[in-house]
Amino acid sequence: MKKLILFLAIFFCFTANAQQSDSLIISKIFNQSLTNSECYPRLNYLCKNIGPRLSGSLNGEKAVDYVNQLCIDQKLDTAFLQPVTVPHWVRGQKEQAYYKVNGKKADVAICALGGSIATPKKGLVATVIEVHDFDELKALGREKIEGKIVFMNHPMKSSFVHTFDAYGEAARYRWATAQNAAQYGAVGVVVRSMTLAMDNHPHTGAMGYNDTIIKIPACAISTNGAEELSKAIKNNSSVQFYFKQSCELFPDAQSYNVIGELKGSEKPEEIIVIGGHLDSWELGEGAHDDGAGIMQSLEVLRIFQNLKMKPKRSIRFVAFANEENGSRGGKQLLALAKERNEKIIAAIESDEGGFTPRGFSFNGDSLKMPHVMSKQELFYPYDLKYWEQGYGGTDINYLKEVGALLIGFVPDSQRYFDVHHAATDVFENVNKRELELGAGSMAALVYLLSEYGVNP
Amino acid sequence: MKKLILFLAIFFCFTANAQQSDSLIISKIFNQSLTNSECYPRLNYLCKNIGPRLSGSLNGEKAVDYVNQLCIDQKLDTAFLQPVTVPHWVRGQKEQAYYKVNGKKADVAICALGGSIATPKKGLVATVIEVHDFDELKALGREKIEGKIVFMNHPMKSSFVHTFDAYGEAARYRWATAQNAAQYGAVGVVVRSMTLAMDNHPHTGAMGYNDTIIKIPACAISTNGAEELSKAIKNNSSVQFYFKQSCELFPDAQSYNVIGELKGSEKPEEIIVIGGHLDSWELGEGAHDDGAGIMQSLEVLRIFQNLKMKPKRSIRFVAFANEENGSRGGKQLLALAKERNEKIIAAIESDEGGFTPRGFSFNGDSLKMPHVMSKQELFYPYDLKYWEQGYGGTDINYLKEVGALLIGFVPDSQRYFDVHHAATDVFENVNKRELELGAGSMAALVYLLSEYGVNP
Repeated sequence: MKKLILFLAIFFCFTANAQQSDSLIISKIFNQSLTNSECYPRLNYLCKNIGPRLSGSLNGEKAVDYVNQLCIDQKLDTAFLQPVTVPHWVRGQKEQAYYKVNGKKADVAICALGGSIATPKKGLVATVIEVHDFDELKALGREKIEGKIVFMNHPMKSSFVHTFDAYGEAARYRWATAQNAAQYGAVGVVVRSMTLAMDNHPHTGAMGYNDTIIKIPACAISTNGAEELSKAIKNNSSVQFYFKQSCELFPDAQSYNVIGELKGSEKPEEIIVIGGHLDSWELGEGAHDDGAGIMQSLEVLRIFQNLKMKPKRSIRFVAFANEENGSRGGKQLLALAKERNEKIIAAIESDEGGFTPRGFSFNGDSLKMPHVMSKQELFYPYDLKYWEQGYGGTDINYLKEVGALLIGFVPDSQRYFDVHHAATDVFENVNKRELELGAGSMAALVYLLSEYGVNP
Repeated sequence: MKKLILFLAIFFCFTANAQQSDSLIISKIFNQSLTNSECYPRLNYLCKNIGPRLSGSLNGEKAVDYVNQLCIDQKLDTAFLQPVTVPHWVRGQKEQAYYKVNGKKADVAICALGGSIATPKKGLVATVIEVHDFDELKALGREKIEGKIVFMNHPMKSSFVHTFDAYGEAARYRWATAQNAAQYGAVGVVVRSMTLAMDNHPHTGAMGYNDTIIKIPACAISTNGAEELSKAIKNNSSVQFYFKQSCELFPDAQSYNVIGELKGSEKPEEIIVIGGHLDSWELGEGAHDDGAGIMQSLEVLRIFQNLKMKPKRSIRFVAFANEENGSRGGKQLLALAKERNEKIIAAIESDEGGFTPRGFSFNGDSLKMPHVMSKQELFYPYDLKYWEQGYGGTDINYLKEVGALLIGFVPDSQRYFDVHHAATDVFENVNKRELELGAGSMAALVYLLSEYGVNP
C-alpha cells in the first residue's frame, strides 16, 4: 500500500510538472508568434507580389517557387516538391451582365462560377425565372424552365451562429444548380453569391457538371444584384437577363505540393502534417483563402526553429496544390503516404481564414481524441476554448485513409464569407495579430502532438 | 426518505426544465439579434449623419437628440434626458509637425492629446530628446531635459495576448508624460500613439495636467512616425522637432445622459443598467468607441420588445455622456441612483468595441457572481466562454457605490487598438454580424439577470 501511495505521489508530481512545463513552453510559443513572426510580411509578399494563383496559372507556379524558396531559406531538414497534375480552367475576359425590363437595361455584377463553360461569344440572353431551392425548380419543371435562365436566389441563412453551417446549407446551390436546371432545359444559371454580406461583389467558387446532362453556363451574382433582380422579377411579368463570360478549360497542367519537414528527434517515423492550400480563386489575392493558412503553417515550423525546440516526432509542412477546383494536392499527399508506408499520426489544416483563433475541431478515431483534448485547458489563457468533434479540412481529409487524426484549426468565422472567393479577399483584410495568434495556436498544438503523440 | 427522493426528483426536474427553457429563450434572442436587428443601420446613421461627437460639441448634442428620439420611437416605458455638465475642449485647426535633421525637414503625422493646451500660435520648436519610460526621464533630469521637447517612445507590448493588458501597461505615458516632463523643464511632449498597429495614424486620448506643475503642450505621433523619429535621433546628435496645435478649453457645456427603460413586471424596483458612452473623440466617427456599445445596448431592449418578453426586473438603457474626457455621465447616473435611493442590481457596459463576442468580466461582490456564472454553459453554443472576474467599465464603475454587480461585455480585443481614438474608427471597420452577436450576447445575459436577479 505504501509503495502504491509513493508511486501515485510520484506519478502525480510528474504529471503536474509536465503540465507546468508544457504551459511554460506554450507561453513561449505564443510570445514568439506575437513578437517575432514572419507570417504577416510573407503573406503580404504572396498577395501583393504574386497575387491570385489558380491551379494551372503562371501565378500558381510563381507561388510554388516562392514557398519552396521559403522552405529552403528557413533551412528545414527537408524541402521538396511533389508533382501534382492539376486542372487548368481560365476565366478569360471580365464578365458582363444586365437585366432588362420594358427595354431598360440595368447592369449587375456577376462572375463565372469556377469550372463553368463560356456563354456564346456574343453572350446569352433569355427570360429569367427565379427559384429559391431545388424543390421549387422541380415543381416548375420543363414546361416553365425550358429555354430560360434560372436565377437561384437561395440566401445563406444569417440565423446560423457559425457561418460555415450557413455555407454548408447553401453551397450545394452553387455546385449543382447548373446540372439541375439543365435537366429541365434551362440555357444558363445565375446563382446568388455565397455570402452573408450585402454588397456588390460576386463570389466565385467551384460548380460541377454531370456528364450525362448538357452543360450550361453558370455565373454568380452579387447579393445586392440578387436583391435588385428579384425585385425586378416580382414587379414585371417578363425580365430578360443577359450575361457573357468567356471561360475555358485547357488540358491539365503541372503543379506541385510544396513540402518541408523538421525531422523528429525520438520518433521521426511518426509524422504530423500541417498545412493549407496554395492555390486560390483569382478575383482577390487569396489572402484569407488560403494564403493565411500557408503562412501560419510554415510559421509553426519557424517557431520551433527559433525557440531551438527539437520536436520528438516529425513535422511536415504542406502547401497543398489545387484545393479549390479538384483537391488533387490532398489526393497526392495520401498517395505519397501510402507509397512510403508512412505513419501520419495527425494532420492539421488551416483553411478557415486568418481570423482570431477559437480552437480546433477533431475528426478521427475517437480513442485518439481524449488525449489531445485533455490538454485543452493549457490553451484557455489564449482564448482557445473551442474543442469539438468536427471537420478537419478538405486537403487533409484524404489522410483519414492512413489513420491520421484530422484537426481543423478553427478561427472566428463571422467575417470569412464576407471576402470568401471575392475581390475583397485581399491582404488589407487580414489583421496581423489575428494571423499571428493562429500560428501560435497551431504551433502549441503541434508541440503537444510532437511531444506526446496522439495515442500514448 | 421516499419523500426526500420525490422532492429531489421534482426539484431536479424543475431545474432542468428551467435550464431548457432558458436555453430556448436564449436561442430566440440570438436568432432575433442576427436576423432582425437595427443596431447596424442605426450605427451607420450615428457615424455618417452625425459623426464625431466630443463632449460640448454641436455633434454631441445632435447625437443626444438622435438617441433620445430612438428611445421614444421604440416606445420604451420611459425615455428621458438627465442633464450632465461636461468639459468643452476643442482641437482647433489640424495640427502640423515635422522634425529637422541637418536642415532637412520630414513631416510627421501628429494630433493633440485630448485636454492639451495649444502651442504658441507659430508653433513650438526645440531639440527633441527620446525616452522610453518615466525612469529614463527621471535619470536624465533637468540638466538634459530643460528647454527640450520630450519624445516618449513607449510601445504597447505586442506580447500581451489581450490587447487591453498592453493598453493598461502603456496608457499612463499618454496621460502623464506632460506633467512628468514639465517637472524637469521640458517645453512640450510627443507621445507614441497607443496602438499595436504600425501605420501613419496618430491616436488621441485623454492626458492630464497637475495643477502644481506648469502646463506644456502634448501631442501623439503615429507609430510609423515614432519609428522614423527614433531612427533620426539615433543617427544624429541633434534633431529639432516642430509642432503646432491650437486646441482650446472653453467653459463647461450642457449635455445629457440619454436614458430609456423597460419596467419590470415583477420587481420593477430592481434595475439592470445597460449602456455605453455616446461621446467620442473627433478624429474618426466613434464607431467602435463607442457607437457600437450604444446601439448594442439599445438593441437589447428592442429584442425584449420584439420577442414580447416582459422582463421581471427593470432594464435601463443609458447612453452615457462624457466618458472620454471626464466621466461625468457615469458620476451623474450614480447621483440619480442615490437621490432616488434606487436598487441597481447590475450594470453592464459595452465599451470595448463591436467585435466578435468572447464573454463577460465581472466586478463586484463575489457572492453575486457564482449565480450568474453558474449559467455560463447556456452561452457556450454562441462561443461565449470568457467568464472571468475583471473590469466592468468606466461609466458603470461609479455604480459600485450603490452595490451594483458590474459587468463588462468582452468582445475579441485584437483589432480594437488599431482604430481606437484614431481617424480609422469609422463605420466601415465594424462588421455587421460581430456587432449583432454582441447585442445578442448582452440581451441573453440581461434576460437571465432580469429573470433571476443577481443574488437569489
